Amino acid sequence: MATMQALRKIAEGVGHIELQEVPVPDIGSDEVLMKVYAAGICGSDLLIEEDKHFYRAPVTQGHEFSGVAYKVGKNVKRVKEGDKFVADIECGAGDWLGVTVDGAFAPFMRVPEHVIYRVSDGVPLLHAGMTELIVATHHLIQERAQVKVGDDVVIVGPGPMGIMAVQYAKICGARQVFLIGLKSDEKRLQIGRQVGADHILYSEDGPEKAVMEITNGKGAEFVLECSASGKGVQHAIDCARKAYEGPGGKGVVVFISLWGQEITVNLDQVSLGQLDIRGSWSWNGRETWEHAVDLLERGLFDFEPVITAHYGLEDWEDAFKSLRTRQNLKAMFHPNGTDWAS
Amino acid sequence: MATMQALRKIAEGVGHIELQEVPVPDIGSDEVLMKVYAAGICGSDLLIEEDKHFYRAPVTQGHEFSGVAYKVGKNVKRVKEGDKFVADIECGAGDWLGVTVDGAFAPFMRVPEHVIYRVSDGVPLLHAGMTELIVATHHLIQERAQVKVGDDVVIVGPGPMGIMAVQYAKICGARQVFLIGLKSDEKRLQIGRQVGADHILYSEDGPEKAVMEITNGKGAEFVLECSASGKGVQHAIDCARKAYEGPGGKGVVVFISLWGQEITVNLDQVSLGQLDIRGSWSWNGRETWEHAVDLLERGLFDFEPVITAHYGLEDWEDAFKSLRTRQNLKAMFHPNGTDWAS
Amino acid sequence: MATMQALRKIAEGVGHIELQEVPVPDIGSDEVLMKVYAAGICGSDLLIEEDKHFYRAPVTQGHEFSGVAYKVGKNVKRVKEGDKFVADIECGAGDWLGVTVDGAFAPFMRVPEHVIYRVSDGVPLLHAGMTELIVATHHLIQERAQVKVGDDVVIVGPGPMGIMAVQYAKICGARQVFLIGLKSDEKRLQIGRQVGADHILYSEDGPEKAVMEITNGKGAEFVLECSASGKGVQHAIDCARKAYEGPGGKGVVVFISLWGQEITVNLDQVSLGQLDIRGSWSWNGRETWEHAVDLLERGLFDFEPVITAHYGLEDWEDAFKSLRTRQNLKAMFHPNGTDWAS
Amino acid sequence: MATMQALRKIAEGVGHIELQEVPVPDIGSDEVLMKVYAAGICGSDLLIEEDKHFYRAPVTQGHEFSGVAYKVGKNVKRVKEGDKFVADIECGAGDWLGVTVDGAFAPFMRVPEHVIYRVSDGVPLLHAGMTELIVATHHLIQERAQVKVGDDVVIVGPGPMGIMAVQYAKICGARQVFLIGLKSDEKRLQIGRQVGADHILYSEDGPEKAVMEITNGKGAEFVLECSASGKGVQHAIDCARKAYEGPGGKGVVVFISLWGQEITVNLDQVSLGQLDIRGSWSWNGRETWEHAVDLLERGLFDFEPVITAHYGLEDWEDAFKSLRTRQNLKAMFHPNGTDWAS
Repeated sequence: MATMQALRKIAEGVGHIELQEVPVPDIGSDEVLMKVYAAGICGSDLLIEEDKHFYRAPVTQGHEFSGVAYKVGKNVKRVKEGDKFVADIECGAGDWLGVTVDGAFAPFMRVPEHVIYRVSDGVPLLHAGMTELIVATHHLIQERAQVKVGDDVVIVGPGPMGIMAVQYAKICGARQVFLIGLKSDEKRLQIGRQVGADHILYSEDGPEKAVMEITNGKGAEFVLECSASGKGVQHAIDCARKAYEGPGGKGVVVFISLWGQEITVNLDQVSLGQLDIRGSWSWNGRETWEHAVDLLERGLFDFEPVITAHYGLEDWEDAFKSLRTRQNLKAMFHPNGTDWAS
Repeated sequence: MATMQALRKIAEGVGHIELQEVPVPDIGSDEVLMKVYAAGICGSDLLIEEDKHFYRAPVTQGHEFSGVAYKVGKNVKRVKEGDKFVADIECGAGDWLGVTVDGAFAPFMRVPEHVIYRVSDGVPLLHAGMTELIVATHHLIQERAQVKVGDDVVIVGPGPMGIMAVQYAKICGARQVFLIGLKSDEKRLQIGRQVGADHILYSEDGPEKAVMEITNGKGAEFVLECSASGKGVQHAIDCARKAYEGPGGKGVVVFISLWGQEITVNLDQVSLGQLDIRGSWSWNGRETWEHAVDLLERGLFDFEPVITAHYGLEDWEDAFKSLRTRQNLKAMFHPNGTDWAS
Repeated sequence: MATMQALRKIAEGVGHIELQEVPVPDIGSDEVLMKVYAAGICGSDLLIEEDKHFYRAPVTQGHEFSGVAYKVGKNVKRVKEGDKFVADIECGAGDWLGVTVDGAFAPFMRVPEHVIYRVSDGVPLLHAGMTELIVATHHLIQERAQVKVGDDVVIVGPGPMGIMAVQYAKICGARQVFLIGLKSDEKRLQIGRQVGADHILYSEDGPEKAVMEITNGKGAEFVLECSASGKGVQHAIDCARKAYEGPGGKGVVVFISLWGQEITVNLDQVSLGQLDIRGSWSWNGRETWEHAVDLLERGLFDFEPVITAHYGLEDWEDAFKSLRTRQNLKAMFHPNGTDWAS
Repeated sequence: MATMQALRKIAEGVGHIELQEVPVPDIGSDEVLMKVYAAGICGSDLLIEEDKHFYRAPVTQGHEFSGVAYKVGKNVKRVKEGDKFVADIECGAGDWLGVTVDGAFAPFMRVPEHVIYRVSDGVPLLHAGMTELIVATHHLIQERAQVKVGDDVVIVGPGPMGIMAVQYAKICGARQVFLIGLKSDEKRLQIGRQVGADHILYSEDGPEKAVMEITNGKGAEFVLECSASGKGVQHAIDCARKAYEGPGGKGVVVFISLWGQEITVNLDQVSLGQLDIRGSWSWNGRETWEHAVDLLERGLFDFEPVITAHYGLEDWEDAFKSLRTRQNLKAMFHPNGTDWAS
């Protein structure tokens, strides 16, 4: 029986992440065996190490991924050997690839056909590995809120989601995109500028003043809070466009953060300015995934500045650390190396 | 020149509220002199005393009112002497009756015709004095959010706005209305039950558990936070219906509180449960006022349990105190007594 | 093997409806055998006779129904023998009870558990037989559009759906409900008045004038077209509230008709008045059915004036004819009589 | 007293358009005298000639325009002599520049300050003359409906509005834009292709088949009907994305046509496919104009292929004729020639 090295959460509790020798999975008649090309490390992978996110141990992690069909079950119709593909990680009630069911931090992964989306040969597999981020970005910026042509947009927090949102806001025709971060985020903020942010503002400088000045006192029609800090929530509320009379809802704030604890904020302007706040999580099933794959195919995003490092699974400790210290923006594992496909 | 006694904020700062002898106002050709029948004391009147709300001193307070046309300017067409009427308090940019321009805590008040809404003879003037509360309630429960037939509704905070919202939710066909308050709010909570609340829950008991149990784990489609406390915000989030996947927005929380300070809350479930939060303040111009007057005319609200006391202006200190200590729910001034009209 | 008499479409084409002797169905382990109490005759049953609606022959018709669990499959958990229940007719892709799969025009019907909704013992089975109409009404009046407290509502066409919508509009707090029909619909129009219509208007009299006069030139916020006539569409457009400037969408027209042919209308006011038209069909899965069963349980509708006749299956020709000639509003089959349950 | 030649509707009825010698207007203290640079000929100018649109004779026509402040009233603050500007044509209740009040088919026009929007020096005045079309396009494509990134879009009718909508749909990130016209519209259809239409389809060929094929049977999320024909309405309905079950509203059709007569259409798919139809007319006040001027300033539209001819007022008969015969797409008058500004 063939075996492989997989990066796994082997038991409940803090830590307990190890490289383990496990069998290459068998597949059923409705499943596909993916040879993994790229597997992104998500913030929730770090939270699983810290025991702050749900999971089911033992499990191979890795839920942002792309690869090629290596073996195909006999009933599978939409994919054939050699096809590039990505997949929705939600396979069934409670079954999440890379979280509760074995995922992509391994050379091979078993994927049910019904969650698979084929990707054209011309799309780089490295970019395809970012599909789940496109899914989340599309959901928050077009399904939970609608950034419209001419809107002013503020993004709080220059992490991978924030940098994707900067790009997507420009694709939607946003007028000006403001990116807010800490002074210690300078490297990430510069990536934001590179992919289209019109204004870089520092949390330490009271960025709401700048937003109000530059928008002639109007504020931003759309604000995304993805900093996971109480201060970020306050910036979001303070930068949003207020509607002190009339029907309300001129300024929309989307939350995609988990703060993991109580935060302290002044919410008075939510009431007075008749703001809309919308939580965003997950996605809207096939509808969102089909849109995301379409955006991927059209090559609308610039992923090169976003993916800042590439690792083998054996260097996982370095990779995790580089994300905790914000040295990297998005780091990718390549469990089979990068030479065999592109 | 005729004079009258008016209750006025006479100077900036804390306090400075006094009964003053002032002239009965002259009216212009587009104005009406109202003989005031009822003038409700609002929470913001207390805040003006405490110097925590905007105002322009010196000014006669009183912005919730009803009365009769006593004298009518020569160009006025929609009102004639003897007509009952109410009025939108927003007369022009920055001109708010009872806040920045003289209001209804006096026997007579000057009102521009363009903000006036006539009320039928058959409508009790006492009820008409509640129109501004209907305006605010309609705005939050039908314009900022839409309570639908069959929705489960949670109201946090049994103040005048909360009690009105309980009634309005039932008018909208809500399935079950839950009213949450402190144990020390028992008197107000019982008024809530009297006007239709199906379940009375106490903040001290963890009311979200009861809401989830009674709704079979679903939560409430609509939650109104009007307690002005951090705990109230937490209850609101915890009681709302979550949408952990799909398009989101199954649970809508409306804020109509001003907390006046930072509060400490856990917002994780806003993101995860894809909640909608909507601030509500003011109203949507004539659209809202016309709806409110129509509701008043149809007699849909039961105001008797809501209006718990009646005062002359000379007893204003008692009246204010009874509201601060929550002995009253809604208290009314009758600057001309109650015998001359009904 | 036990047999029963069932009313079936036995072959494709016009006609071909017959009472046939067929076996009482066997049930699988996830199914329930319903003893049918009431089975409403829908307009689409007439269309199936005329070969103008989709179906799969041979098939037992009947898709509006209520009954009691007579036998229960071994894996069934949510229903036990003797329970009252109703069911969503959409069992799977393309499988519609009473249309493509055997339905309720028979003493017994096989129903998969996953589409079943239990009904309390206290709810009359006759009323439960109307659940699918509540489903359709809820979808159009709360999910496709939102009738709000204070809205003026026009219903065009006093068929079963129109009469249900009159009632539902009142439950939503509508201000005035106008019901429009032909002079030959007098009997149905009077039922509309009985269940709450404030104004009865005749198509022949130019009802849009009356609607505009009574609403002071404003028109109706919500109009339902369920007359299936070109004239009805024109009335709907002409009665709706126009928004000649501003954001638009003040008047919402819902279509639930199939006209079955081209119609001739003037649509200019749709553009000029910035109307919203929304087609409504089917429903929103479990979400709608759960709401409908809740409304049924709360007894909010008055079904007595709506259900105007009761038939045995053997009298099906009389029953169908009475609906074609509009002598009845809603007619019910009772394949097992009415004595055995209530 | 200085005079000038103006193109005027001089009396009610068909025809009655003449070049007349009239005084150069005086301005009040809150008004600006515009020296007109470009004045577009709109379809409604032709309708006024045909007596099929409202107007108030005698009146100088011309409501799509740009120019320079030639003289400025003493209270005017936002404009100074020499500034480029455009203006909302709705000056007050019933007062429409170029329709009921003298407009821009003349060398000089009086404009109240409150409807003026300044345009930067760098923006070509020829482009600024298209602002009202941007206003209408923004209103229909972002305010009445929201074209989202990845939507498939169908435009029916390759007139000036249709060609602008093709461009705007691409700015919004539409996936594929289909433009439908008659075979005799070939010239206009090719302009559509030039500004971004992905697919040109002919009304005569049953374009809905192509739309369905190319979108894999899904249909278009957004369809604009601007052909003013019954056939166009049918194409719009047939090309839209249907939602045969679920919440509905997957396909949105916007009407901006006036057909001027009854049309014959089959609306069954509006009900069955749960379509949304939204009429669009006018705009949403300052909100829309500010967005439109911002889009103009950003240079997002390619106007060169759209403006196909330039005329002096004296050639008005040729100009009108060229539009009636669809030889031109958008034709501009330059009442002061084109040499004096740019």
